[in-house]
Amino acid sequence: MSTRSRPSNVLRPIKFSSGINKNAFSSVLVEFGDTKVLTCVSYESKVPPFLRNMGSGWLTAEYAMLPAATSSRTRREVTLGKPSGRTSEIQRLIGRSLRAAIDLKQLGELTLTIDCDVIVADGGTRTASISGAYIALEIAIKKLIEMGVLKSSPIQRQIAAISIGLSNNGLLLDLDYADDSSADVDLNIVMDQNLNLIEIQGTAEKDVFSTNQLIRMLALASDGIKDIVSKQRDFLDNYES
Amino acid sequence: MSTRSRPSNVLRPIKFSSGINKNAFSSVLVEFGDTKVLTCVSYESKVPPFLRNMGSGWLTAEYAMLPAATSSRTRREVTLGKPSGRTSEIQRLIGRSLRAAIDLKQLGELTLTIDCDVIVADGGTRTASISGAYIALEIAIKKLIEMGVLKSSPIQRQIAAISIGLSNNGLLLDLDYADDSSADVDLNIVMDQNLNLIEIQGTAEKDVFSTNQLIRMLALASDGIKDIVSKQRDFLDNYES
Amino acid sequence: MSTRSRPSNVLRPIKFSSGINKNAFSSVLVEFGDTKVLTCVSYESKVPPFLRNMGSGWLTAEYAMLPAATSSRTRREVTLGKPSGRTSEIQRLIGRSLRAAIDLKQLGELTLTIDCDVIVADGGTRTASISGAYIALEIAIKKLIEMGVLKSSPIQRQIAAISIGLSNNGLLLDLDYADDSSADVDLNIVMDQNLNLIEIQGTAEKDVFSTNQLIRMLALASDGIKDIVSKQRDFLDNYES
Amino acid sequence: MSTRSRPSNVLRPIKFSSGINKNAFSSVLVEFGDTKVLTCVSYESKVPPFLRNMGSGWLTAEYAMLPAATSSRTRREVTLGKPSGRTSEIQRLIGRSLRAAIDLKQLGELTLTIDCDVIVADGGTRTASISGAYIALEIAIKKLIEMGVLKSSPIQRQIAAISIGLSNNGLLLDLDYADDSSADVDLNIVMDQNLNLIEIQGTAEKDVFSTNQLIRMLALASDGIKDIVSKQRDFLDNYES
Amino acid sequence: MSTRSRPSNVLRPIKFSSGINKNAFSSVLVEFGDTKVLTCVSYESKVPPFLRNMGSGWLTAEYAMLPAATSSRTRREVTLGKPSGRTSEIQRLIGRSLRAAIDLKQLGELTLTIDCDVIVADGGTRTASISGAYIALEIAIKKLIEMGVLKSSPIQRQIAAISIGLSNNGLLLDLDYADDSSADVDLNIVMDQNLNLIEIQGTAEKDVFSTNQLIRMLALASDGIKDIVSKQRDFLDNYES
Amino acid sequence: MSTRSRPSNVLRPIKFSSGINKNAFSSVLVEFGDTKVLTCVSYESKVPPFLRNMGSGWLTAEYAMLPAATSSRTRREVTLGKPSGRTSEIQRLIGRSLRAAIDLKQLGELTLTIDCDVIVADGGTRTASISGAYIALEIAIKKLIEMGVLKSSPIQRQIAAISIGLSNNGLLLDLDYADDSSADVDLNIVMDQNLNLIEIQGTAEKDVFSTNQLIRMLALASDGIKDIVSKQRDFLDNYES
Repeated sequence: MSTRSRPSNVLRPIKFSSGINKNAFSSVLVEFGDTKVLTCVSYESKVPPFLRNMGSGWLTAEYAMLPAATSSRTRREVTLGKPSGRTSEIQRLIGRSLRAAIDLKQLGELTLTIDCDVIVADGGTRTASISGAYIALEIAIKKLIEMGVLKSSPIQRQIAAISIGLSNNGLLLDLDYADDSSADVDLNIVMDQNLNLIEIQGTAEKDVFSTNQLIRMLALASDGIKDIVSKQRDFLDNYES
Repeated sequence: MSTRSRPSNVLRPIKFSSGINKNAFSSVLVEFGDTKVLTCVSYESKVPPFLRNMGSGWLTAEYAMLPAATSSRTRREVTLGKPSGRTSEIQRLIGRSLRAAIDLKQLGELTLTIDCDVIVADGGTRTASISGAYIALEIAIKKLIEMGVLKSSPIQRQIAAISIGLSNNGLLLDLDYADDSSADVDLNIVMDQNLNLIEIQGTAEKDVFSTNQLIRMLALASDGIKDIVSKQRDFLDNYES
Repeated sequence: MSTRSRPSNVLRPIKFSSGINKNAFSSVLVEFGDTKVLTCVSYESKVPPFLRNMGSGWLTAEYAMLPAATSSRTRREVTLGKPSGRTSEIQRLIGRSLRAAIDLKQLGELTLTIDCDVIVADGGTRTASISGAYIALEIAIKKLIEMGVLKSSPIQRQIAAISIGLSNNGLLLDLDYADDSSADVDLNIVMDQNLNLIEIQGTAEKDVFSTNQLIRMLALASDGIKDIVSKQRDFLDNYES
Repeated sequence: MSTRSRPSNVLRPIKFSSGINKNAFSSVLVEFGDTKVLTCVSYESKVPPFLRNMGSGWLTAEYAMLPAATSSRTRREVTLGKPSGRTSEIQRLIGRSLRAAIDLKQLGELTLTIDCDVIVADGGTRTASISGAYIALEIAIKKLIEMGVLKSSPIQRQIAAISIGLSNNGLLLDLDYADDSSADVDLNIVMDQNLNLIEIQGTAEKDVFSTNQLIRMLALASDGIKDIVSKQRDFLDNYES
Repeated sequence: MSTRSRPSNVLRPIKFSSGINKNAFSSVLVEFGDTKVLTCVSYESKVPPFLRNMGSGWLTAEYAMLPAATSSRTRREVTLGKPSGRTSEIQRLIGRSLRAAIDLKQLGELTLTIDCDVIVADGGTRTASISGAYIALEIAIKKLIEMGVLKSSPIQRQIAAISIGLSNNGLLLDLDYADDSSADVDLNIVMDQNLNLIEIQGTAEKDVFSTNQLIRMLALASDGIKDIVSKQRDFLDNYES
Repeated sequence: MSTRSRPSNVLRPIKFSSGINKNAFSSVLVEFGDTKVLTCVSYESKVPPFLRNMGSGWLTAEYAMLPAATSSRTRREVTLGKPSGRTSEIQRLIGRSLRAAIDLKQLGELTLTIDCDVIVADGGTRTASISGAYIALEIAIKKLIEMGVLKSSPIQRQIAAISIGLSNNGLLLDLDYADDSSADVDLNIVMDQNLNLIEIQGTAEKDVFSTNQLIRMLALASDGIKDIVSKQRDFLDNYES
C-alpha cells in the first residue's frame, strides 16, 4: 500500500538554486520534492599523495546528513568518531560518479572537493546529491576557466542520477521515503546525457528480481534521467552567476 | 582600517524563517547579514543518566559548521574523529544559554536537543545560533503544549545574544568576519528581555581592556539585544505554524 | 593488454574447504584461483537493540584483509581507528546478500555473525566471500538444527556471487587482480540458484557502458553463477562434518 | 547556606613552589587552599605549521585532572579517546590568557607548551592554573635568556586570574568547591598587573545578573588579582633557581 | 660507562608520603631517588560485567605520565586517542601484581581502582608504582574496614617491586634513567614479603643472558625487595591517618 | 584436574608451512597442536622517523586474532578503535624478540614488518608467533640477499619461544588453552639456539612461585626450546622456495 499521489513514472518536483552560500566556490541547493541537499564545490591547488607528480587532478566527495534532517533525529557522526558504513558507501558512490564526469588528466594538479549536506531527507538523498553536485561542478569549472586556473573544460560528460523501486504494485520512479520503505527492490542509477550507465546499484531489500525486471527498471530510469538532464541544462543556461 | 559600511552601533539585517525543515520538530533559519544558521529542536521522552528519576528535564545543544561555510573550506570534524576545541566551547555556551531560558523542573522528564548548523559563516555564528535557537525553542514548546506533552510552558525568560568588538576605531556592534578580524577585544553577551546578563565572554585578542571599556561595551550590547528581542517577539507573534 | 591465460568466459579454479578452524561454529576456506578467504559463522542467542522483542533474528557480516594479503602490504585498519570506506562498503554488501538467503523471522531471536577474512587477495575477494560464506551459513544452520536450537531451516535461497569486467577486449568472467586493473567497467553480481538478482553493483571505472552491454554482462554472470551454485551444492552434499 | 569560614572578600591561602619536577624546563606547583595544580613549561625550537616562516612564536596550553583529583573519581579522558568539552574550554582559556602575557613576535620561532595538571581539585583549578603558569612562564623565559636562546624578555605583562561568585548571600571571592556549588553566578577573570582585563567569562548558573552586579563583581575581582599579582612578584623575587 | 654514584647493590633513597591528595580515598606519593609517582586508590560498590553476581571483587590499575615528567616532553596520550603500547603493558603489570596481593573473593562486590600518575620519571616508574600502590592499597583497606564496608582484610600478601640491570659492569640494583639506558638486560621483579615471585619480566635489550645470570639477578632483586618491604612496613606502622 | 593426554614435558605436534600467501614477501603458517598462526614478513626501504639517517634498520611486529579464532567469538579490535591492552603487550613482546635475532645496524635502512595473525587460538599464540616468525624472517632475509638488497645476513641468532605452566600437578611444557586455564603460574620464555634468554615473562595467575620453581621451569623450557630450534632448522634446510 503506497500513499504516493503522483503517477509511478513521474519525478517529484525538482528545483535547483545557486549562490545560497556566498563563501563556497560554487554552491547549489537541490530539491527533489521535500528532499533538500546543499552541494558545494571547493578546490585546492594540490593533489593527494598517491597522485603527486603524475599530471592528474582529483575529485573527492563527502556526504553528511544534518541530525534533524530525518523525522527521528539522527545522532551526529562526529560523536561516534567516524562516518557510518552508510555514509562511507554513499560518499564513495558520489565521488566515483562525479569523477566519471571529468577528465582528471585535463583537470591538472587540482583537487575538487564536493560537499553534499542533506538539509531535509525524504528519500533519494544520494541521487539528488549527484544530480545537484553536477551543476555545482559545472559552475565551478566555469569559474576556474574565467579565473584562468583552467584553460579549457575537463568536463567530458553530463551526469544525473535517479532511484527506481519495485514492489508488488509495479515499478516506481524517484522514491520518496514512503515509497522506499515499501519497495522490495531498490535501484540507484547514474547515467550520462546519452543514457549510458556510470553506476548501477540494485538491492533486493525484500524480494529477488529477474533480469527482465531489471531491464524494465533501467528503461524507466532512462526516462527519469533524460528529464533531469534536461532540467540541469535549463538551469545551467539560465542561472545568474 | 575597517571596511564596515553600516554605522558602528547598528546591527546587520536580521531575518528569521521557520519551517524550512519539514522533518524537524521545529526549525528556524536565522540570518545576521551573510551569516546563516539552521537551528532545529528535537525532543525525546527521556533524560540523561545523571538526571534519571530526579523530576527534571534536560536541554543540550550541538553546533557544527558545514565544511563549505567558510571562505576557505574547513575540514569536516568527523574526519578528525572528534569535535574541535572551538566547537566544544561554542556548543557548551549555546547549551548553557538556552538552559537558562527554561525551568528544567517544569519541563519534566524530557530532553530537548538543539542543533545549530552553520550554513554560511560570516562572523557571529554563536550569537546568531542562540538568538535563532530561542525562537525554535519557543515554537517547540508551543507544539509540545498543543500535543499535550507539556501542560504549561517552562520558558522563564526570552534570551538573545550579540557580539561587541573594540578596536582603535572604538566600539562595534555585531561583528561580521572582517570586523572580527580587526578587533582587539571580542565580547559575546547573552541577555534576557530585561537586559539581565546570562553569559559574558570577553577576550583580549590583541590588547587588554579596562573595566570602563567593558561597561561601555555592555551598554552597546544592551542596545543590540533590545533590538533582537523585539525582532524575535515580532516573528513569534506572526509566523505561520 | 591482458595477461589472462584462461578463456574470458571461464571461472578460476574454485576450492572450498571446511573445518579449518576448529574453534569456529562453522568455517569454510574459499579459494578462487589465488584468492583465499576464510569465512566463519558464529551465533549468539540475542539480537541487536533495534530488533528486540520483534520475533526476528539478524545476520551481520564483517570483512577484513590481513595486512600481508596484498602484494604491497596494507596498513592494519585498527591502527587507523576505523574501517576504511572500502571495507564498510564491502561488509555491508556481504551482510545484505547473506540476509537475503534466509528468512529472518524463521531464524528467531538469534544473531549470526559472518566473518570474512582475506588471507590472500588476488581480485574478487567480496564475491568469493559471499560464495564461501553461503556454504558456511548452510553448515551452521544444519548444526543449529542438529543442536535443537532451530526447528527447521530458515534458508530460503542459495546464493552465489561473481564479478564481470568489460574492457576493449570484450567481457571477462571472474576478474583476478590483473583483469580488474585493466577493466573499464567492473560489475559485481549476487544471484540465487534460479539466477534471480539479489545485488548488482556496476561501476564505470574508465568508460561508460550501455544497457545492452549490461545485459550481455548479466548473461555471462548468470553462466558463472550457475557453475558456482553447482559447485557449492556438490561440496555441501559431500563434506565431512 | 555556605560552609565558608573565611570572609567573603578574602582569598584562600596561596602557595607557590618551584623545582618540584627536575625534568621539566620550569615547574611551579600552585596551591589555592586545597586546590593543587602542577604547571610546567616546555619549549621546542619550532612553531606549528600555520606560523611557519612568519617570524612569530607560539604558546599553547594543555589542562588535565588526575582521575583521583576529585572526591568522586573522574574517568581518565584517554579512555574516552578525546578531551571532554570542559577540558577543551579550559585549556583554550589558559592558552589565550598566557599568550596575552607575551609578545609572540619577540619570542621568535619557539613554541612554549604549558602543562597544567590538577593534583587536587577543590574549585578554581582554571584560575589557579593561570596564576601559577604565569610564574612558570617567567622562570622559563629567564632560563631561555640565560641560555642565550632569547636575547630579551618577550613578557609584556604579568597576569593572574581569580573567580567570583554571586549568591543570595552576596559576592564571594575565590570560590572553593562548596562555594561554587552554591553560587548562582560564576565569574572567572584574568587581569594584568594594572588590573586591565584579559579574559572575562561569566555564567548565570542559576539566576541572571545585572550589569551593576557585574561591576561590583569586577571590583572584588580586582582586589583579589592585586593580591595575587603581589604574591607572584614576591615569589619571583625570592625563589631559588 | 655509568655515572652511578651509589654502589651497584644499593637502592636509591626511598620516601613514602600519604595524604597529599585530600580528595582521594587513599593516596601515597612514592619517591625512588628523583622518580616520583602519585598512587591513589578509589573504590566503587560494583564490579565489571564479567564478574557480576559471582561473589568476587575486582582491582584494576591505570598508569600515566605527566607530559613534563620526562626530560624531553612526552605527548599527552589523550591527544593520540588511546594509551600507548608501553602504557598498556605497564598498567596491566601493575593491575596483575596488586590483584595478587588480595583475595578477590574476600573483597566482595567492590572494585578498587589504582591510579599511578608519574610526576617525575627518572627510571623505575613501574616498580615504584607497585611498591607505592601497595601502601595506598593497605591504607584503603584499613579505611574500608573502619567504615564497615569490609569485615576483614582481604590482603593475603605484601608486595613490592624492583628493577635489576645487567651490563658489562655487572649487575645493578634499582636502575635510574641513566643506568637503564646503559643496561644490556633489564629485569623487573615483583615479589611478596617472603621473597616469592609474583611477576618476572626480563628483556635482552642489547645482549642475551644466561640462566645463571638470571639467578644472580634474582638474588640481588631479593635483597632489594627485602629492603623495600621493610620500609613499607615501617611506613604503614607509623603514618598518621 | 587436567584433560591433557600427552606427558607434561612433551610439546604438541609442531608444523611449519611456507608459501601459503603468494602475495607476502615471506609467509609461514605455524601450528602448535590446534593453534595456527600465519606469520608474514614485509619490507620497506625506509625507517621510522626516530631512526632516520642513523644507519640502522628497524623491525616491528603486529599481532591480531581473527574474531572466530576463539571458541567464543572475540570482537574485532577495529570496531573498538584501538588494539586491546593484551594485543599491545603481545605485539611488543614479538617485536622485541625478533629484533634480538638481527643486527639492526647490519640491516641498513630497511624496515621489516612481521604480521602474526592467529587463525585458530588454542593457547600459546604468542610463543607460536615468535617461533614461526623467526622462520619467515630467515626466509625473507635469504630473499633480500638473493635480490641484492642485502649483502650479507644480519641474523645474529636463531630464536624460539615456549610457555611453561605450574599447577599443583607440577610443571607443564607448552600449554594449550585447557592447560593454561588450570595453571597457577604462566611463564613465557624466548631463547636463542644456545639456550640463552632473550625474554622471560612470568605471572603468578593464582599462586606465587619460588626462585627454585622458576629454575625448574627454565630447565623444562630449555628442553622445549632445544626441540623447537631443531625443528626450525630442519624446516629451513628443506623447504622449497
